[in-house]
Amino acid sequence: MEWNQIEEKLRDLLDRGLHSELRGALMVQNPVDIAAFLEGLDREKMLLLFRVLPKDISADVFSYMSADARQTLIESIGDNEIRSLISDMFLDDTVDFLEELPANVVKRVLQNTDAQTRNLLNTFLQYPENSAGSIMTIEYMEAHTGDTAARTMAEIKRVGIDKETIYTIYVIDRERHLCGSLALRKLILAADDAPIESIMTENPVSVTTTDDQEKVAALVRKYDLLAIPVVDKESRLVGIVTADDVMDVIQAENTEDFEKMAALTPSEDSYLHTSPIKLALNRIPWLLLLSIAAIFTGMIITNFENLLQNADVILTACIPMLMDTGGNCGAQVSTLIIRGLALNEITFRDIFRILWKEFRVGLLVGLVLSVFTFLRVLLINQAGVLIAGIVAASLYCTVLLAKAIGCCLPLLAKKVHLDPALMASPLITTIVDATSLTVYFSIATAMLGIR
Amino acid sequence: MEWNQIEEKLRDLLDRGLHSELRGALMVQNPVDIAAFLEGLDREKMLLLFRVLPKDISADVFSYMSADARQTLIESIGDNEIRSLISDMFLDDTVDFLEELPANVVKRVLQNTDAQTRNLLNTFLQYPENSAGSIMTIEYMEAHTGDTAARTMAEIKRVGIDKETIYTIYVIDRERHLCGSLALRKLILAADDAPIESIMTENPVSVTTTDDQEKVAALVRKYDLLAIPVVDKESRLVGIVTADDVMDVIQAENTEDFEKMAALTPSEDSYLHTSPIKLALNRIPWLLLLSIAAIFTGMIITNFENLLQNADVILTACIPMLMDTGGNCGAQVSTLIIRGLALNEITFRDIFRILWKEFRVGLLVGLVLSVFTFLRVLLINQAGVLIAGIVAASLYCTVLLAKAIGCCLPLLAKKVHLDPALMASPLITTIVDATSLTVYFSIATAMLGIR
Repeated sequence: MEWNQIEEKLRDLLDRGLHSELRGALMVQNPVDIAAFLEGLDREKMLLLFRVLPKDISADVFSYMSADARQTLIESIGDNEIRSLISDMFLDDTVDFLEELPANVVKRVLQNTDAQTRNLLNTFLQYPENSAGSIMTIEYMEAHTGDTAARTMAEIKRVGIDKETIYTIYVIDRERHLCGSLALRKLILAADDAPIESIMTENPVSVTTTDDQEKVAALVRKYDLLAIPVVDKESRLVGIVTADDVMDVIQAENTEDFEKMAALTPSEDSYLHTSPIKLALNRIPWLLLLSIAAIFTGMIITNFENLLQNADVILTACIPMLMDTGGNCGAQVSTLIIRGLALNEITFRDIFRILWKEFRVGLLVGLVLSVFTFLRVLLINQAGVLIAGIVAASLYCTVLLAKAIGCCLPLLAKKVHLDPALMASPLITTIVDATSLTVYFSIATAMLGIR
Repeated sequence: MEWNQIEEKLRDLLDRGLHSELRGALMVQNPVDIAAFLEGLDREKMLLLFRVLPKDISADVFSYMSADARQTLIESIGDNEIRSLISDMFLDDTVDFLEELPANVVKRVLQNTDAQTRNLLNTFLQYPENSAGSIMTIEYMEAHTGDTAARTMAEIKRVGIDKETIYTIYVIDRERHLCGSLALRKLILAADDAPIESIMTENPVSVTTTDDQEKVAALVRKYDLLAIPVVDKESRLVGIVTADDVMDVIQAENTEDFEKMAALTPSEDSYLHTSPIKLALNRIPWLLLLSIAAIFTGMIITNFENLLQNADVILTACIPMLMDTGGNCGAQVSTLIIRGLALNEITFRDIFRILWKEFRVGLLVGLVLSVFTFLRVLLINQAGVLIAGIVAASLYCTVLLAKAIGCCLPLLAKKVHLDPALMASPLITTIVDATSLTVYFSIATAMLGIR
């Protein structure tokens, strides 16, 4: 049955007040879908249905709900319910959820957890934002040096149900130092009395709690891992980050780059749930900065007042085309470079190789665009050969300059540890504008003899 | 030991010609690192080391190499070696690799595989590019309705070593219809005689061979899956896509969006391995198209020739600032919308909600920018209140228009099944330019009485 048919059936049961049938029909659905269904209901019905779900399912469903829906629920349910919810949730999901809540609600939730969980949660909440520590889970499967395959397998059967993944088992020594990782598939195929040291992979790839989540994602992707272990400064195992959370990190990091490249202050809130004032505040600083930068472009035009007032108006009419093409050429290169840097395909050392490549690309692109523009100005705008030549030559220079600027700025930003994504279209456009207008007017002045 | 220390040691062994020690030191490294190490060597040394690796490791290493290195290798090794390499590789990796090779090399590789594999490979190569079929693997673990837990476990121990993942087992009936999925963790905890129908999850989330890889990635991410089953049109199980491949899909789809948003024809080749001519060809069509569009902006300026020649030059000097700010405002909104659409956080139905939100954001952003610009033109450019007022009012209108255009175009593109990513900065900028200049000159003409 398709999901929209199921949803219709669920709504029908809800409307007819058949709550126990509804509970049965809801329980067999995927928690992700149950969460989406509950969020589409009004507050009372959401609360009602949430309460009829079995405890273990409701904790799962809760983890998949949006921040807003979770806050609504947590403010509506009693202290006992909070306690049982938190005890059924994975610790990393609880941390995620607490990070989104207002301080007073966090306080109420923490008051309703036992002392041990509270201490753990407080530790997690202190890890730097977007660090490996802040996204890891402590529900991993561990084994100890000296254990046998059979003993490890028995342990998995005993406690594995509460672990976020049992497919990779982490081997630690008496001091909890990470010694190895063991894939469940190897364990299944091993002889019962095999020492785990003989089947584990030594020196597994790991991260420390303070490493950035971007590094975590890059390593998981590079080595095709299902989970990566997180160690503290003394190399002791403290948690793991699983592949499903890494996918969310990858998307979040990409979204951040998209936002920075469009001159937006990155925000983790979803668009539809952000207030207009907050959205405006995310945009104004960059727009103001860029608008101040554009003053220089204006000054260049004012400087060449005489030229513009006395020459053919076609010169002025070509300003937008020149600015836009320059901006677009610069944006194309900078996007490729920024993306290459983000995916570790390009490093600063490649700068001369890239410049040389872009120079050749620019020669070709510039040639095609200039010839097209020359003919266009000559034939469509009916301007003279001189004017058409000035425009075409300026365009060629602009393309080459834009390529060079779009290629160097992100690489230089990386070199001085700024985020290369900031050197994208908006900033490049403004810089290319000023450069291309200067070139344009200088060529025109020289060729037309107007000063 | 850090990787660069290991690398130094390996190079030292290589230089001293100690091949058997080198083999031993290389074998215990991660295949990802071995691949990177081999790629850093010259052709002969790469080939030498590749040949000394044990067969199962060399197939793994081969899968992690770049397209160029793989082609170099395949052209240097003999037919027997090709045969053994292909038989040790996972089928999806072989398909990936064949897709990148020139036709004559593909032919040679196919000639060196047995008839069954060749047929399979040919089927795979016929799936549409970027479809679920083209990225799936057939090395999955299956179980049959009627089996018990113990029997399934025995089967995993027998054939599991050759499967890409054994952590999810797919349950099929006699006609190979997909009936359920079974997590290995549930199987481990089940009683020996439990029928698998009683422990499997019914109606698992699945995709068909022709579904786009973007859909595959979205479902895996939504439901936090380790792998997703792929079925044919008759709902028969034909393959699976694993989470590690999904991560690569997510990055590839994001790269494609970044490229489209910068007016680049998407390309799957890495930047440094693409020739300048190919790069130029990826860029010229869009630049030409946008440069043709800019002709209209030029026409608007020509139309208002009289105004520009007779009014204060400040009016002309403000054109770049107006164009850039409009472009930036439009780019900010369109980026948010395009990203929201890509992550399924926004749908076309939200259009009025978004327009209303953007209108309020525009009122605020426009106010701040206009006041700033009014004062700037008045005080720094020493223009009169009238001119400053014209510029400020035009800027306010431009911001509001840019927001509306940046919000509607991606949503409309989605509605008519175009890729919203095409409606990004470059196109929006060109459209906003024409709109804002028209508004600007109309306001100026009306206020100054020049026609």
